Amino acid sequence: MRVALLGGTGDIGEGIALRLARDADHEVHIGSRDAEKAERRAAEYVELLGDRGHDVVVSGHGNQAATAAADVVVVSVPPEYAASTVEAVAEDLDEGDVLVCPATQMDRDEDGFHYDPPSAGSVAEAVAAAAPAGVPVVGAFQNVAAGALTDLDNDLEVDVVMTGDDADAKETIRGLVEAIDGIRALDGGGLANSSEVESITPLLINLAMNNDGMHDLGVRFQ
Amino acid sequence: MRVALLGGTGDIGEGIALRLARDADHEVHIGSRDAEKAERRAAEYVELLGDRGHDVVVSGHGNQAATAAADVVVVSVPPEYAASTVEAVAEDLDEGDVLVCPATQMDRDEDGFHYDPPSAGSVAEAVAAAAPAGVPVVGAFQNVAAGALTDLDNDLEVDVVMTGDDADAKETIRGLVEAIDGIRALDGGGLANSSEVESITPLLINLAMNNDGMHDLGVRFQ
Repeated sequence: MRVALLGGTGDIGEGIALRLARDADHEVHIGSRDAEKAERRAAEYVELLGDRGHDVVVSGHGNQAATAAADVVVVSVPPEYAASTVEAVAEDLDEGDVLVCPATQMDRDEDGFHYDPPSAGSVAEAVAAAAPAGVPVVGAFQNVAAGALTDLDNDLEVDVVMTGDDADAKETIRGLVEAIDGIRALDGGGLANSSEVESITPLLINLAMNNDGMHDLGVRFQ
Repeated sequence: MRVALLGGTGDIGEGIALRLARDADHEVHIGSRDAEKAERRAAEYVELLGDRGHDVVVSGHGNQAATAAADVVVVSVPPEYAASTVEAVAEDLDEGDVLVCPATQMDRDEDGFHYDPPSAGSVAEAVAAAAPAGVPVVGAFQNVAAGALTDLDNDLEVDVVMTGDDADAKETIRGLVEAIDGIRALDGGGLANSSEVESITPLLINLAMNNDGMHDLGVRFQ
């Protein structure tokens, strides 16, 4: 599979890139608005994994070139840029490509973090509204901490809930998710069910803030 | 500890009552708008646990008498009746009693279940708005399936997130929650953080609907 990580120089993009490159036989393309930065970060990921004995192929591009090179495009940019990033790469998406939305939107007050969804109902639905026809969106990865993904000694043992309206696209993303060691993919139903997944992320931060010894939390359903 | 379960004839109330009576040395008072029904159900719980070799004290009352007899009052009624139930027992609450809100509010469409909070932001906050001064509210137990609690052979292995603005009240409820075998209590911060806990419940149902072999799900943070 050819996977692009738009905003793949950020922490969640880095985490997914490192895990996919290490655990799966995927071609990983790092995208950024700044192509040179993407190339530099891609070289760092290759070196970091090389130091651990993993010979991987990770390349860096502008977001449009990364999108053009991939079949699965992970929109790992800050939530406020998710829809506009998809609009900016719309012409580089082919029919049948799949967009993955790992973002959630939060605000913070004295009690902690709170889910603050966009008017579409969820970030995943906002991304879907911006996506071209024939390019399905799957929500996934919202509840995996970037710090857990980038710590390659962390065994994870967490779940990723997938939401989406295209069953084939969800099965494609199940393959992508479960290629990462220690992650189980669960079907959360349609894209309209995304807000209940996205809203777990602020809770994970609140739990880490309020319970000694807990950090970089994920979730397991059992 | 003396614990009242208002609406303790319903499924989540039954589950908490059975577990508390079996695992902890608490005095359990079942409350219902119909005192005779509460007495009948309490007798059934005593018999059910007796058949399994547990000699327990569970009694049934009207909601007001159950409240008067208890230090901790669990509002295990359907969410639309939570605030009005608290108002109906307000005079039977003593200063220093603690209210526990295990309820969430959901609606359903073709995609599945969705969190549908009251205007207060969460059911727990709506209950707090109805509570007398000096009686703190703690959100807890929303993400434990009634079916898992009432199946006394289920080992649970799940987390309960507590939210509340009164630290002492939260510590009291931590003791109550962790008295139940297989449940870990986590501090989710202030009561304003309740919606992110309540909104997990519809996701648990959606996951059970969409994944073979999953049912009566709970959640574990790790």
